[in-house]
Amino acid sequence: VVWRAGGKGVNVARILLALGAETAVTGLVGGVTGGMLRSDLRTAGLADKLEEITGDSRRTLSVFDEGTAHTAIFNEPGPTVGPREWQRFIDRFIDLVAEAHAVVLSGSLPPGLPVNSYAVLIDVACKLGVPTVLDADGEALRQGLSGHPTLVKPNLVELESFVGRSLRFPNDVVEGIAAMRKAGSETVVASLGPEGLVAVTPEGSWTAKPPESVVGNPTGAGDAAVAALTLGMLAGTPWPQRLADAVALSAAAVCMPVAGAFDAAAYRRFLPAVHVEAR
Amino acid sequence: VVWRAGGKGVNVARILLALGAETAVTGLVGGVTGGMLRSDLRTAGLADKLEEITGDSRRTLSVFDEGTAHTAIFNEPGPTVGPREWQRFIDRFIDLVAEAHAVVLSGSLPPGLPVNSYAVLIDVACKLGVPTVLDADGEALRQGLSGHPTLVKPNLVELESFVGRSLRFPNDVVEGIAAMRKAGSETVVASLGPEGLVAVTPEGSWTAKPPESVVGNPTGAGDAAVAALTLGMLAGTPWPQRLADAVALSAAAVCMPVAGAFDAAAYRRFLPAVHVEAR
Repeated sequence: VVWRAGGKGVNVARILLALGAETAVTGLVGGVTGGMLRSDLRTAGLADKLEEITGDSRRTLSVFDEGTAHTAIFNEPGPTVGPREWQRFIDRFIDLVAEAHAVVLSGSLPPGLPVNSYAVLIDVACKLGVPTVLDADGEALRQGLSGHPTLVKPNLVELESFVGRSLRFPNDVVEGIAAMRKAGSETVVASLGPEGLVAVTPEGSWTAKPPESVVGNPTGAGDAAVAALTLGMLAGTPWPQRLADAVALSAAAVCMPVAGAFDAAAYRRFLPAVHVEAR
Repeated sequence: VVWRAGGKGVNVARILLALGAETAVTGLVGGVTGGMLRSDLRTAGLADKLEEITGDSRRTLSVFDEGTAHTAIFNEPGPTVGPREWQRFIDRFIDLVAEAHAVVLSGSLPPGLPVNSYAVLIDVACKLGVPTVLDADGEALRQGLSGHPTLVKPNLVELESFVGRSLRFPNDVVEGIAAMRKAGSETVVASLGPEGLVAVTPEGSWTAKPPESVVGNPTGAGDAAVAALTLGMLAGTPWPQRLADAVALSAAAVCMPVAGAFDAAAYRRFLPAVHVEAR
């Protein structure tokens, strides 16, 4: 049994830190589980900028079955956040963003938060001139798009849920991406598991495919892609190289048994072998 | 999501307390989870006589599916107990047993404990003239029997695992019980779910069957039976009445969504309707 501070935002932060980026984690935590989470973040070397709430932070359980290589995931719903706690968080967020080069908004919203929370936060960052990357699902994603994030990274399930139908690779996926761009984000990078990434941006469109099918734990693969895309955005890396990097890092994350980590040797091996194609 | 201090011993203690018996809980706990467990015991009004260890107490997760009414249970292995911690526990156990009227030894042994731990503890109680009730499984049960507990309460799975073959009710079960008596416990009460209890004692043999098949959560039903059998032993209640009580309380525990509790109205309704028969 291994326990550690988790959640998509924390996974992205761990990867960013491992890649040498100065990274702070914010969000809403509370109770005994919140205390464990904070202490684990400190151990990992991540700056703890979390806002304390009265509710108890949730736990999730992943059970890996060695026989079938399947993972079952049980997510608790999480504590309800009060309106004053949310307002305190926004105040803190403003101070943090004022010092940041980029903001990643990742994961589901806890009960009690307004469903347009991501749009509110993206708007804050936008006004401060700080680019944003959004990785969310369902209504939080839909409403978040109206805040005009710099980049949004749906996976296939999120894209399908957004357009309300199943999408076949590649043409349907590109249609789904177009709908998402229309909803508010100029740049959409969809992560499609073994098919890699499809990016549609104002600078052009690309597909990027991993060199080999990687067996392992896919949890956290999307978070690794988000980390790479964020750093590429800050560095102004040309899109083909930026996407290759994201695909290689994502595949190297699948090699690891836990989310928020990647196999550095696999990353180096995969990187030159990613196949990027303009569309 | 509901969390609470659990484990078979705690379940038995909660029932004993609800039945008006002065009850203390001992065992080995540690870490953050151990702290939560202790605070929950205090809330429940149980005397906390737990011994602190350096490892972190385990958690178990029960997931109830409303559609199928099935419960999936995930048990962590628990922390490894060091030899000094085990010795400190024995010292404490001796002091506690010296003040007790009965000892219930219930549940699995954490990693690091000698497999004959229950035999050692039963021997301590025996020398102090305090009767013991054992409810364990596998090797912990097998070796525990050599300490000669006053009563042992296997369920069907435990009985089958003890004899190494599947047992049909009632004749095979009685054979299994005979084998268990031979191994060290004069009194064996087997709990067989909807079939109720089969008791083989120096005073005679009985079956006791619940009045109706009860739908609910069977976790903790055996613990309720253990609590009733322990109080019946202390009061010297005649066996037929003692078994009827245990069957009714056990069925009333199935009515509750959590272990360590029973539906008092159902208990009163079931009690006169339990069918006890001498064998």
